Amino acid sequence: MSDFLADTTDLLRRTPNVLRALLLGLPAGWVDTPDKEAGWTPKDVVGHLVTSELDNYLARAKHILEYGASTPFKPFDRFAMLERDREATIDQLVDRFADLRAKNIANLGELVSDGDLDRKGLHPAIGEVTLRELLATWAVHDLDHVSQIFAGMAGSHDADVGGWKAYLGILLRRDDPAAVAG
Amino acid sequence: MSDFLADTTDLLRRTPNVLRALLLGLPAGWVDTPDKEAGWTPKDVVGHLVTSELDNYLARAKHILEYGASTPFKPFDRFAMLERDREATIDQLVDRFADLRAKNIANLGELVSDGDLDRKGLHPAIGEVTLRELLATWAVHDLDHVSQIFAGMAGSHDADVGGWKAYLGILLRRDDPAAVAG
Repeated sequence: MSDFLADTTDLLRRTPNVLRALLLGLPAGWVDTPDKEAGWTPKDVVGHLVTSELDNYLARAKHILEYGASTPFKPFDRFAMLERDREATIDQLVDRFADLRAKNIANLGELVSDGDLDRKGLHPAIGEVTLRELLATWAVHDLDHVSQIFAGMAGSHDADVGGWKAYLGILLRRDDPAAVAG
Repeated sequence: MSDFLADTTDLLRRTPNVLRALLLGLPAGWVDTPDKEAGWTPKDVVGHLVTSELDNYLARAKHILEYGASTPFKPFDRFAMLERDREATIDQLVDRFADLRAKNIANLGELVSDGDLDRKGLHPAIGEVTLRELLATWAVHDLDHVSQIFAGMAGSHDADVGGWKAYLGILLRRDDPAAVAG
């Protein structure tokens, strides 16, 4: 039988190491391109993940434990990183994310046990949610945004692959989300 | 000025470490789902990356150096892993990929220098290509397929995120490639 809390924490613990392996010291030419037109560069994405550690998931877990569904979660700024991290390097942001994530996982382990997972909270837009759904979303949100980093990195070399582009869905989807690789 | 060969090799060297950080010892519940309906599980993807190391990019680089565009590249089996790796675990495949990649990068460094990058080859379907395009495609192919692993991993928890799914593009796109997150 799967252990939801342990398995979700396992994934959350991996993301900083994935970002380190992928990004630390990477030549600048790989990380100067957004995932799509008017999208986010890898640095923007890591900044958004920093925001999520500062203001989103752990804060909302605490909100559920304290207030249940009696008051909605506070909103947070999805674009906070654009100003806040203007002077930071992507390597600094990866390290910052790793520090915050380690603290938040430790905190989560102290605050939440299996018996809490069905406790309810109130999302300002989507309504009633559970703590289990919040934690699953935290993990899938990691996967979603790291995937966005891959799209930006691939896009940085769009002009270099020549005719092979027809086989590279990650490039085709930057131009047309419904594209299917040949 | 960017150094194409060094920067491309840098990316190729990272992928095994990204896969290790992401996958080694990961609970089975994260890796039992294909990236989309009738798609590939994370294990299938890693198996395809093993095939690429065995039969595709380095072999084609050698082909260009030896034959130029005088004869087309040999085809390879995009689905070879389905039979070949039936008994292997995903952790074994990650290790196998890492070994093959390390050898291929060493081999590439001995075989190819900057002056070779404009040498031409002949792809059986897309026609004339350059060694530079082949190497850029090798790297972007890594990004494309690791991204596919993320999609499968996210899909494994599709049912757990509740109403948050509306904000998670990586899940929405499994159902509808053109979907845009709310």
